[in-house]
Amino acid sequence: MTELIPTLRWEGDAATGSLWLLDQTMLPTDTVEIECNTLEKVHEAIRMLRVRGAPAIGVAAGYGVVVGMQTALGADRTEFDTRLNEVTEYLAGSRPTAVNLFMALDEMQESASANPAAEPAVMIEQLLQTARQLEAEDREMCDAIGRYGAQLLEPGSGVLTHCNAGGLATAGSGTALSVFFEAAAQGKQIHVYADETRPLLQGARLTTWELMRRGIDTTLICDSMAAQVMKEKRVQAVVTGADRIAANGDAANKIGTYSVALLARAHGIPFYVAAPSTTFDMTLTSGDQIPIEQRADDEVTHGFGRQTAPDGTQVYNPAFDVTPAELIAAIVTEKGLIRPVTTENVVSVIRG
Amino acid sequence: MTELIPTLRWEGDAATGSLWLLDQTMLPTDTVEIECNTLEKVHEAIRMLRVRGAPAIGVAAGYGVVVGMQTALGADRTEFDTRLNEVTEYLAGSRPTAVNLFMALDEMQESASANPAAEPAVMIEQLLQTARQLEAEDREMCDAIGRYGAQLLEPGSGVLTHCNAGGLATAGSGTALSVFFEAAAQGKQIHVYADETRPLLQGARLTTWELMRRGIDTTLICDSMAAQVMKEKRVQAVVTGADRIAANGDAANKIGTYSVALLARAHGIPFYVAAPSTTFDMTLTSGDQIPIEQRADDEVTHGFGRQTAPDGTQVYNPAFDVTPAELIAAIVTEKGLIRPVTTENVVSVIRG
Repeated sequence: MTELIPTLRWEGDAATGSLWLLDQTMLPTDTVEIECNTLEKVHEAIRMLRVRGAPAIGVAAGYGVVVGMQTALGADRTEFDTRLNEVTEYLAGSRPTAVNLFMALDEMQESASANPAAEPAVMIEQLLQTARQLEAEDREMCDAIGRYGAQLLEPGSGVLTHCNAGGLATAGSGTALSVFFEAAAQGKQIHVYADETRPLLQGARLTTWELMRRGIDTTLICDSMAAQVMKEKRVQAVVTGADRIAANGDAANKIGTYSVALLARAHGIPFYVAAPSTTFDMTLTSGDQIPIEQRADDEVTHGFGRQTAPDGTQVYNPAFDVTPAELIAAIVTEKGLIRPVTTENVVSVIRG
Repeated sequence: MTELIPTLRWEGDAATGSLWLLDQTMLPTDTVEIECNTLEKVHEAIRMLRVRGAPAIGVAAGYGVVVGMQTALGADRTEFDTRLNEVTEYLAGSRPTAVNLFMALDEMQESASANPAAEPAVMIEQLLQTARQLEAEDREMCDAIGRYGAQLLEPGSGVLTHCNAGGLATAGSGTALSVFFEAAAQGKQIHVYADETRPLLQGARLTTWELMRRGIDTTLICDSMAAQVMKEKRVQAVVTGADRIAANGDAANKIGTYSVALLARAHGIPFYVAAPSTTFDMTLTSGDQIPIEQRADDEVTHGFGRQTAPDGTQVYNPAFDVTPAELIAAIVTEKGLIRPVTTENVVSVIRG
């Protein structure tokens, strides 16, 4: 097993330290950590997807604020606060649709507001502490999901996953992948089948990389092979992540997840979703209200360095699909299992 | 609509003409015809998959025999027959597992055996006629499948296909795609959704190319998007080809076909198979007896001209899967429809 490299980490003290990121754009062929010791470098890393996944982006932004405020240590508190506004506003523009990014920046701002009398040199220590707290909470969330989810997997079983709901998307061990890591840590000897996940191949590029790094027996398949793997009784469960979950449990996730859920039902295999409680949007009564983002044609026609379809080919490229609650055997959250998946049970676990 | 370029064609007379092939290795970006005016060029074209698909390989080999015999026109009939044995043996080695190749070469040999007194100059005319007959039979088979299948599609409907069961694999208009071409010729205004078909992307590279060339409204999707396309009611039928069909109707085809058949059932959409009667292997009582070929890992890990999974990734890469007869609404053959798909109906149509 190769040495583990965290998705992100802070090195050094508050006044002179920096944020280190695993550059995910270099995976799976190159494992490179980059040092973000200026605000601009943090911004660029988020914008260029060197760090990705909602929870990981939030934590990176928290540390990014600390990096950005290091240049204001000689200022007075008023100037410091002005600079803080500039820094958070600048970082908020790095991924304009990332909710976790805004939540993290709000926490950093509140940390400053709650200590209005602190000098900049003290305040930056406080900001680092808040960023560390964001990271710790994210890790605890991942670990709790892992513990609740691992009990769903039988020793020696095969399990299939789609896309990357891994530690690379969080500061911790991920959501769906945290379940696998915890099951493996409990000695359950699972074997994971990873869908490559077209068009962007997060399964091939990221999930296999994470699982192999952690010494988990992993087999990569094309998305079209999942049904055959199920038919051959190679997997006894499916676990995926989710991007957004409605109050009734309908779950939006990477395109292809709904397909896997239907195939699992056809083979009598339980389909589980692992996601933090922050993924639930209780204002949505069902998944029908979740808009499906359409993405660029060339993700399909020019995947990975080569043109694979004729010029002018018309493409349909939905980024997500919605798996109806009725196909989901349980949703694993850091607050516990939602099972069976009903609005009543969602409310009880998420708000309870 | 761009000018149609046939998969293969003979140009010139028997003594000096040659076989022209559309070089399928250059698709979808370049449309290049190559002239095969020597036996070696025909052999290389078959071996390097410049021509592919069982029926097309058979016809190309037939014309390849004519090309190969042009150098024996000055010989006596005994020398001519010796040369014919050499030529057929040589061509038989170009794709050692292609049944249609051997069948076509046998036909060419029989054509010579049936005319033992003919001089070489006459005999080569006879060989060209036999090769043309092979081509004509292949075209008629495709057209008949198209006619029987087109009646299954409603005007204005969407239809989904997987892999390439097209004219590129035959001397005619294909099997599944022949159904679409005939429906379009009847003015039915269909819209075809083509699965890209990982790992080798025959859908993206070949099916979209063929459909667009023939002016059929076509949309390319990733395999993982088929379920979503069905959920949105964009398709009202699925038609695929088959590589081998058991006596009970269980059909082996490109990996992912079984998945599409299950998804079609889940959405109440009929799933059809289009294949010539030669595809049936009546010695097999069910699809369980069809062995599933496993292919090389790098088709999955290095599929797009770039490495997309970590070094050492374990891969499961079955080339085919078997769709059970119970999921198939009808099998379209050149002899008629098999519907419902039962052993009795298979026997009745195929042997009837």
